[in-house]
Amino acid sequence: MSQAATENRSERDTIRAVQWRGDHLRLLDQRRLPHEEIWRDCRSVDEVVQAIRDLVVRGAPAIGIAAAWGVVLAAQRGGDPDAALAKLRAARPTAVNLMWALDRMRARAHAGADAHALAAEAQNIQDEDLAANRRMGQLGATLIEPGSTVLTHCNTGSLATAGYGTALGVIRAGVEAGRIARVYAGETRPWLQGARLTMWELARDDIPATLIADSAAAHLMRQHRLQWVIVGADRIAANGDTANKIGTYQLAISAKHHGAKFMVVAPSSTVDMHTPSGEAIEIELRDPAELLSHAGARTVVEGADAWNPVFDVTPHDLIDAIVTERGVIERPDAASMRRMFGEGAR
Amino acid sequence: MSQAATENRSERDTIRAVQWRGDHLRLLDQRRLPHEEIWRDCRSVDEVVQAIRDLVVRGAPAIGIAAAWGVVLAAQRGGDPDAALAKLRAARPTAVNLMWALDRMRARAHAGADAHALAAEAQNIQDEDLAANRRMGQLGATLIEPGSTVLTHCNTGSLATAGYGTALGVIRAGVEAGRIARVYAGETRPWLQGARLTMWELARDDIPATLIADSAAAHLMRQHRLQWVIVGADRIAANGDTANKIGTYQLAISAKHHGAKFMVVAPSSTVDMHTPSGEAIEIELRDPAELLSHAGARTVVEGADAWNPVFDVTPHDLIDAIVTERGVIERPDAASMRRMFGEGAR
Repeated sequence: MSQAATENRSERDTIRAVQWRGDHLRLLDQRRLPHEEIWRDCRSVDEVVQAIRDLVVRGAPAIGIAAAWGVVLAAQRGGDPDAALAKLRAARPTAVNLMWALDRMRARAHAGADAHALAAEAQNIQDEDLAANRRMGQLGATLIEPGSTVLTHCNTGSLATAGYGTALGVIRAGVEAGRIARVYAGETRPWLQGARLTMWELARDDIPATLIADSAAAHLMRQHRLQWVIVGADRIAANGDTANKIGTYQLAISAKHHGAKFMVVAPSSTVDMHTPSGEAIEIELRDPAELLSHAGARTVVEGADAWNPVFDVTPHDLIDAIVTERGVIERPDAASMRRMFGEGAR
Repeated sequence: MSQAATENRSERDTIRAVQWRGDHLRLLDQRRLPHEEIWRDCRSVDEVVQAIRDLVVRGAPAIGIAAAWGVVLAAQRGGDPDAALAKLRAARPTAVNLMWALDRMRARAHAGADAHALAAEAQNIQDEDLAANRRMGQLGATLIEPGSTVLTHCNTGSLATAGYGTALGVIRAGVEAGRIARVYAGETRPWLQGARLTMWELARDDIPATLIADSAAAHLMRQHRLQWVIVGADRIAANGDTANKIGTYQLAISAKHHGAKFMVVAPSSTVDMHTPSGEAIEIELRDPAELLSHAGARTVVEGADAWNPVFDVTPHDLIDAIVTERGVIERPDAASMRRMFGEGAR
């Protein structure tokens, strides 16, 4: 039993949603979880682009890793690397990790790297992301008082990264260290990544977790003491303004109102020192149909309109800590960001 | 065409979700809208209680009206009025209109009223609610600057009342007077009353409306100028603290943060001067299954837990105006509430 449990936990700890298989990329289809674990094999750049667009793979770091492997696929098939890079870059506009991973792959391609060398670079990107997550988990957990209750949003776990997770990595490390006693997860409309994915990951790790409607967060903060809101990021601007899943900004405002603290956890590849502030971050608008239907069935009267921004921007003055693998910046601003990440550096 | 359009508009203006049919109560099943207009006939108190519990009828004023007719049904069938009153009172705990309507019916029953006289009282309650809504529409609309954009939450329209609506009545009057140019509606998880019901009512009235995820409200306020958030209420305490659909409190915090104003619209039957503040309002917790499934299909991993409060409390200091048919209270507090509603009066 104990042996089995240990093996089980070890197996659990290794959810890998993005897997390179030598000549194709295997992706865990996140649209079908938690009901079905269906894997999709991508054998061309176009298939990788489609998988990113359709949210088969999602989460800023996982998107970057998948795109890096997309460049390898192009090289293996003798395609033009620049054409592949351009297609992948356009797949989703907000996550800067995508651009960062592609910049690394382009630099190697332009230096004459063959498919084999490009695969080594993609593997580096993936391995570094996992290591960054472990490191951020340790750093973030030390900020949390023992016995705390925390709230997270969307999915920032193994599924969204090379493994372990960003915000969910801090939560995993915090639970393990006895600092986090209970986790609340917002369901995260319209795609329900919190309900479908985060609750699934937390259940696999036997972490005490409770799902709430996104709109119940402020009531939760008022009724029950909540110490931290912990979220990921899709892009962090040079002044610390952070783009993340729609609803994050509302949580930051509510946290400030109730004296709860607000932590952003993301690898340094999410930091974009070329974007001066949140104002300059392009926010992806997706199809209104995502709000007007559910599971293929229309929920709203025909002809109705919806506004469906996927991300929002949380200004740095609502953020208590930004955690990257390079360290923690408390009360981030342009000066402290520059000290850690340099001038216009990626 | 014009004739037809006029007739159509006139027909539209008369959505009546709660209809007395002489010997039974006919309810428009709000769980099936906007796809199907299915009517349910209640022929006993127990059927009315079940319809209230199961959200066939919802919205604080509509619940009160349906309950009043439930007492008439009991009297027509020779049942014990006190037993009927007790069952109805327990159907849902938060909406004080339910208690208020039952208090009126009990007073008549205890004064010896027969089924015929009780039916007259139930009809009065229904007619007064419609008149109150028309009056509140006029009063609320005058607070709004011409050309404004507003956001509402849940459904507070004809479906939730005897007709016309509370917050949605103000929106109807505001649109008619050219004061409101655009309406945003939050979808209102987990029951999606905003998506299913409010968007349906607004479409029927040709009012320009856009649906948003509840979590997008703060981003909307930051991106686009929004003048007013306009909501209904399930109970208003003696100091102006207001219980309303879960998510309302979060909207009030975001409105304050962005300098948008916050209006509560409800008939005086929603005011409970016996409840000193929001702390004393019982908040209904419903089945976690409402968050864990959608349309009968499980969306969250088996074994997962959810916290499903249906209402929350917005403290009076986040409210710019409370509109009842008796008048407008700006920046409500215990003193101004007492001046309008008296000491411990219902």
